[in-house]
Amino acid sequence: MSFAIKVKKPVNLGDIPTNSNGGLTEDVARLRTSKLGEELAELQSLMYAAGTHSLLVILQARDTGGKDGTIRNLSRNMNVQSVHVKSFKVPTTEEAGHDFLWRAHPHAPVLGSVSIFNRSYYEDVIVVRVHDLVPKHIWKARFEQINAFESLLDASNTIILKLCLHISKDEQAERLKARELDDTKAWKLSVGDWEERALWDEYTKAYSDALSECSPKHARWHVVPADHKWFRDLAVTDAIVKTLRPYRDDWEAVLKAMGEKARGELDAFHATEG
Amino acid sequence: MSFAIKVKKPVNLGDIPTNSNGGLTEDVARLRTSKLGEELAELQSLMYAAGTHSLLVILQARDTGGKDGTIRNLSRNMNVQSVHVKSFKVPTTEEAGHDFLWRAHPHAPVLGSVSIFNRSYYEDVIVVRVHDLVPKHIWKARFEQINAFESLLDASNTIILKLCLHISKDEQAERLKARELDDTKAWKLSVGDWEERALWDEYTKAYSDALSECSPKHARWHVVPADHKWFRDLAVTDAIVKTLRPYRDDWEAVLKAMGEKARGELDAFHATEG
Repeated sequence: MSFAIKVKKPVNLGDIPTNSNGGLTEDVARLRTSKLGEELAELQSLMYAAGTHSLLVILQARDTGGKDGTIRNLSRNMNVQSVHVKSFKVPTTEEAGHDFLWRAHPHAPVLGSVSIFNRSYYEDVIVVRVHDLVPKHIWKARFEQINAFESLLDASNTIILKLCLHISKDEQAERLKARELDDTKAWKLSVGDWEERALWDEYTKAYSDALSECSPKHARWHVVPADHKWFRDLAVTDAIVKTLRPYRDDWEAVLKAMGEKARGELDAFHATEG
Repeated sequence: MSFAIKVKKPVNLGDIPTNSNGGLTEDVARLRTSKLGEELAELQSLMYAAGTHSLLVILQARDTGGKDGTIRNLSRNMNVQSVHVKSFKVPTTEEAGHDFLWRAHPHAPVLGSVSIFNRSYYEDVIVVRVHDLVPKHIWKARFEQINAFESLLDASNTIILKLCLHISKDEQAERLKARELDDTKAWKLSVGDWEERALWDEYTKAYSDALSECSPKHARWHVVPADHKWFRDLAVTDAIVKTLRPYRDDWEAVLKAMGEKARGELDAFHATEG
């Protein structure tokens, strides 16, 4: 199972399925998610202890795409002490008075830790473009600026994983209606949601370009079928685990070396006592 | 008078004079600095009111090169309400756990305002290189990362001016000795200063490469002869004024349009009253 998009191959979001279930029933999928969750916890803990890498997870989705639910699911398996979740809303006046990456950069993860971006600077090439908030030459230049920024993070050992939670137009209608009927979720709904929905195709185009322009090898986008929430959770957990797994040996080696050094220092200490 | 280095033409700092005085006496130079200072104050105030641009001044120099004195001189003519001075010291553990631009980015100026960097991320290709603190492929990659970062700032209307205060080895010896003898300045001196001095040629090479690699049209380095403090102050003030002057007409036009809009709104308001 991999939903990573191919490097340097343009994608059209409209062609990618939203309702895959991997041939699994919900029960089986949840069991696998839980099993992978344990591995995720272990990998996170290893990364924290080794302190040689950090992890940045970027979540993007249309309205009701499931960003909040995804974060809730991840938090079940991650140690929140070393996870920082940052949500990006409409820029403040101070934020708008700087380059578009200014408000994101301070939230890049420190070595050993995880940052999860709930929306991100990708809105500056998506919503900004759909609503024509800046001229074309400005948002077009941002693809390269984003790539340079992510290269900078990559060069300082930040592992980058970008997840686009992908739902169908019908599924969105269901979820918007459900929100209207559910008093506990009605606050999440605004008139704007239905207006944004009318721009579905414009968003598809903007997403497709962003995914295509910003998917270098070290920071690939994964388009996660998200119509089934239980499958989305499995696919997201799987993607993170598969991204971290290749580092396991290195992190264990770092810890082993640390342990030997610590033991060596302890021996030296006891030797001076004798 | 211009000490801007040429774009795409490698420089050797060792070949650039440190003791120029522009053919001026100290008195005449100070008078001119004061006159230019008035224009600087006016330009800064225009920039603040128009709010369409910001200014980033980066100061780099060898020890005793005159960064603090330069900032003191500038502060005489600038409105400190919209100036932010940021000094960069040895990175903290948290700073070292991020990419090298992480600690600088939050201090980029907001539209309308000025940031002055006392040292900067250029130390990450200078002192870091001289002392072999990271492998060559890491600091070499930083030239491009710096260029991308400054392009990002440029794209969001930050005017960038980079000043390398350039003193001779003899002048540095004088200043270090003077510090030793002056109780009010002795705190600025450390044993390290003399040790760094022994690496004079390595610093010359590292500075020369940084200036050569990072001088695009929108973010050029100026190598300011700084043996004579009074000439240095003149040259710095002159460089900033000449950098801002081309924007004067635009800023005045913005203010004029603002005034007309404000007057128009006022008229509309009075019309509804009638």
